[in-house]
Amino acid sequence: MKAVSFDRVTLGGFWGQWLEKLQAVTLPTVYDRFSETGRFEAFEFRWKAGDPKQPHIFWDSDVAKWIEAAADLLAQRSDPALEAVIDRVVELIALHRDPCGYFNIYFTVCEPEQRFQRRTDHELYCAGHLTEAAIAYYRATGKDRFLRLMQDYMAYIKKVFIEEDRAAFSTPGHEEIELALVRLWETTGDEQYLEMSRYFVDQRGVSPKDIAGGHNNDYDQSDRPVRDITEAIGHSVRAVYLYCAMADLARLTADDALRKACERVFRNITERRMYLTGGIGSAARGERFTEDYDLPNDVDYAETCAAIGLAFFARRMSLLAPDSRYADAAETAIYNGVLSGISLRGNAFFYVNPLEINLQQHRIEKDWYHRDDPLLTQRVEVFSCSCCPPNIARMIASIGDFLYSYDEQTVFVHHYFESKAAFDGVTLTQTTGYPFEGEIRLRAQGLRGKTLALRLPGWADAPLINGQAPADVRAGYAYLPVEADDVTISLSLDLTPRLMAADVRVHADRGKAAVCRGPLVYCMEQIDQAVPLGQLVLSADLQPTVAQDAALGCPALEVNGFRELPAAALYTRYPPDRQPCRLRMIPYFAFANRGESDMQVWTRI
Amino acid sequence: MKAVSFDRVTLGGFWGQWLEKLQAVTLPTVYDRFSETGRFEAFEFRWKAGDPKQPHIFWDSDVAKWIEAAADLLAQRSDPALEAVIDRVVELIALHRDPCGYFNIYFTVCEPEQRFQRRTDHELYCAGHLTEAAIAYYRATGKDRFLRLMQDYMAYIKKVFIEEDRAAFSTPGHEEIELALVRLWETTGDEQYLEMSRYFVDQRGVSPKDIAGGHNNDYDQSDRPVRDITEAIGHSVRAVYLYCAMADLARLTADDALRKACERVFRNITERRMYLTGGIGSAARGERFTEDYDLPNDVDYAETCAAIGLAFFARRMSLLAPDSRYADAAETAIYNGVLSGISLRGNAFFYVNPLEINLQQHRIEKDWYHRDDPLLTQRVEVFSCSCCPPNIARMIASIGDFLYSYDEQTVFVHHYFESKAAFDGVTLTQTTGYPFEGEIRLRAQGLRGKTLALRLPGWADAPLINGQAPADVRAGYAYLPVEADDVTISLSLDLTPRLMAADVRVHADRGKAAVCRGPLVYCMEQIDQAVPLGQLVLSADLQPTVAQDAALGCPALEVNGFRELPAAALYTRYPPDRQPCRLRMIPYFAFANRGESDMQVWTRI
Repeated sequence: MKAVSFDRVTLGGFWGQWLEKLQAVTLPTVYDRFSETGRFEAFEFRWKAGDPKQPHIFWDSDVAKWIEAAADLLAQRSDPALEAVIDRVVELIALHRDPCGYFNIYFTVCEPEQRFQRRTDHELYCAGHLTEAAIAYYRATGKDRFLRLMQDYMAYIKKVFIEEDRAAFSTPGHEEIELALVRLWETTGDEQYLEMSRYFVDQRGVSPKDIAGGHNNDYDQSDRPVRDITEAIGHSVRAVYLYCAMADLARLTADDALRKACERVFRNITERRMYLTGGIGSAARGERFTEDYDLPNDVDYAETCAAIGLAFFARRMSLLAPDSRYADAAETAIYNGVLSGISLRGNAFFYVNPLEINLQQHRIEKDWYHRDDPLLTQRVEVFSCSCCPPNIARMIASIGDFLYSYDEQTVFVHHYFESKAAFDGVTLTQTTGYPFEGEIRLRAQGLRGKTLALRLPGWADAPLINGQAPADVRAGYAYLPVEADDVTISLSLDLTPRLMAADVRVHADRGKAAVCRGPLVYCMEQIDQAVPLGQLVLSADLQPTVAQDAALGCPALEVNGFRELPAAALYTRYPPDRQPCRLRMIPYFAFANRGESDMQVWTRI
Repeated sequence: MKAVSFDRVTLGGFWGQWLEKLQAVTLPTVYDRFSETGRFEAFEFRWKAGDPKQPHIFWDSDVAKWIEAAADLLAQRSDPALEAVIDRVVELIALHRDPCGYFNIYFTVCEPEQRFQRRTDHELYCAGHLTEAAIAYYRATGKDRFLRLMQDYMAYIKKVFIEEDRAAFSTPGHEEIELALVRLWETTGDEQYLEMSRYFVDQRGVSPKDIAGGHNNDYDQSDRPVRDITEAIGHSVRAVYLYCAMADLARLTADDALRKACERVFRNITERRMYLTGGIGSAARGERFTEDYDLPNDVDYAETCAAIGLAFFARRMSLLAPDSRYADAAETAIYNGVLSGISLRGNAFFYVNPLEINLQQHRIEKDWYHRDDPLLTQRVEVFSCSCCPPNIARMIASIGDFLYSYDEQTVFVHHYFESKAAFDGVTLTQTTGYPFEGEIRLRAQGLRGKTLALRLPGWADAPLINGQAPADVRAGYAYLPVEADDVTISLSLDLTPRLMAADVRVHADRGKAAVCRGPLVYCMEQIDQAVPLGQLVLSADLQPTVAQDAALGCPALEVNGFRELPAAALYTRYPPDRQPCRLRMIPYFAFANRGESDMQVWTRI
């Protein structure tokens, strides 16, 4: 199966607006922050011991992700100023790279004697992100200088790591280069990059250099060979980046054992270790997966980058097999745990995405029980560890990648975006207010004699195609033969808000329910309620009404609930006094855009 | 109002059995542990630097409480061996005390130069407990040697602290001596002890010596003058011991400002800071009160000694004013948060009394979230800090103290124990299976022309006296004129199990209910259930049945509930699958007597 690249897609509607914000706000904001903190200046290689703004081991990757996002935008919108910024960075890379091909700011200006000596220090991770940036820039502009520089670097990496095996480690402590190498193969057609990717994947958990001692090997997925993976373990971003490469390689090399490992770990994540929002990695210490059903809401981590990585992995799984569970998971992450990471204005970011903020309880646990879990209640413009802002930027810039894939007979429609796509003689036009509306009109041109496969979202009850229940549904896709050159199909998805429960094994969600509408998880913010969130209870008979929130620019809900009132005594006969009331809810991705406020996704019922 | 002392009461039934266990098991067990750890040997004053078993600053008080318990038992049961042990200790005190009257093992053998220099180091606390022990032994046996030794010690304390004001501090860092001095006045009639008590109470939060710096003054109730107290603050045992003395002094010196402070703090505890079990002091760090409505179940502290102290304080409040709220609180603590501190065999002890044990969740929070809250799932026989075992022993030994009080016109019946009491020409005989049965027959002899006031427990719906709703009820007591020399009254209390809810401001109990029967709080232990406790839900329609549990020797309950079953997916439509089932519950005080098991008082409903 082949993916349709985002540069074949023109977006309007929901994602069109995000692209506008990306160009007008997000990319300039992140650029400014990176400039202020010295990340761009670092490419000048002038830092000396004692100077301020010492380059950090992951700064290369921060700028690389920003370039990738900017390049992806350039593929869709002209922006000469942006292009000039990238050209200048490429110039500096060409100027300061080692003649052997090596390029890494930190390990050149700060610790040159440590090149390829410290597995945990993000050297190959940076190489991967720079390569992805170079690919994006080449695809957007046709300029190949950056790409060639990175090919030189990869040749050097191949020599040191594979041909001469003289680095201090065999596989990177933070995965990323594996999936970048697959993309490099896709772009150049040069098989050696696929082989390199496979080498790094296959050596993982095998190479004695990396696993000596055995301590913490699970943290960076080095505790076992990749084909033996059964559960999502360790640092969550590292993990899903690895699974992306595994899914790519399973597809491109028809590696059945690798495919089975991908399927197992995808099931483990989505059936046991994922928040309702698509957030993954519960624990702040180690930013990691913990164990099945451990999904606390108030101290969760659910890093934005991890949700992005999950969407990337799920998209690659969609290419392995047409099963709607993959696009369902991608959709859940994208509209909830990813978008919550950026403010509605596009200028501020969450690294951690809690499902519950209870300021009083957090203070009590800190003051009296000496618990000091991370809590960030407002998105910030500056991060010292700034992986998420440019990562969410590049995801928005390339969101069209998620839309379609195809093989000889069938075009798969994985998502519903207001958009027009043209590829291989086919034109697909979607007209829809998705994700806020459930009606989609899909015009398909140039598909006569082929098949359209429309994903029926797992959340949708009784979807209708052209007003009928679809006849041929397999693994969540409705297969429709296309009998004319130009056909228009309507898909109706019921967006009636629905009450969701978590498996009872999820300790944090017992006795609670969440409200979803279409792909969107909703939440309550204190600012909308008359009493503290903890005193509110959902009614099982929601009686929902939907109304546009002008300030947030998205539909808010009102549903039936109750207020529990403070009692006459500390302990009274059950039941406590309750007053019926209406509860206002907003999309989870829109929380924390109106000042600091308690928030919760899961509410007692 | 005057109290009727426990030595006027002969106990049978529930408390008679505990007295038997006290003599046969608890006192010998605690004696053995104290002997093994060197606590008795320490009275020989032979320890020298480098020796093992260095005396600890609170060892005097541990042994003193054991002596007090033993003496109280001797007042009710002959036991020459026990008496010989106490005589030997008194002999050693006489031998090793300082000629000036001073007696403290640690500060004589370990740091003699530090006498009365360190406020936080329990010196006056030990003096208080030794004095209580001496009083008990004098009252039990008529032997006054120990009492006179302690009177000498108090004379020396008076000289150093009050007359010459030359100690490094003015009031003790751990209260206890204040209430002991009141008891010494009660026993000797010597007014100077009441004045000393009042001095220590009045200087608290006032003396510049103690409050200099201001840091942590709230921990030991030195943050303000006692008459300004509005909330229960700081270390919970320290706090309630202070409040005991305050209540005594308020009554004995008709100090209205002190009485009002006592009433305020009693209300604050019972209306905002007390577990359903009568446990107090939520936080392990500082063993302290925290803030209103902060009552976590899984990490609670609720030290046994604090519940004992609350019962002591409540009993003293009963003497200040006949309001059933006081005896209600004492009863709640005694039958739940105190008795949970001792095993049913009488040989093992909890220091901390959790309302929930969830071993898996505790492990998860420790492993992944680096939370290391105290969790003791089984009572132990040995404590390094061993305040609770002898404290619970002395409370059981003197439990009869709680039963009655009287003034010229009225005899107040605060509690219902199978018992016979004789005082001032009055004989009161109670025949009852309380707390497991709700029928009480009270025979009163020698009360013609007086009034009997029977407490109607706050938990009881529609109590009946002689089959009728009582006519004259004030502040929770039913007042009955007694018209004959020998009358028998029946009191019927409805023990139908009841569902209780906590005020919604208690974060930990939201959406949950507890089951109580009469004065007893019930709980569920994992050992009795087919699925993990977290999967169980109470039905609001309990349909309870009561049946004796032969192994535990108390009534167990079965009530209606549901089992929530693991779902087909991580998130499914609400409601989750539930199966109706019966849930077995046992009295809270009986938990952790059948091996390690998860337990919870509060269950989802």
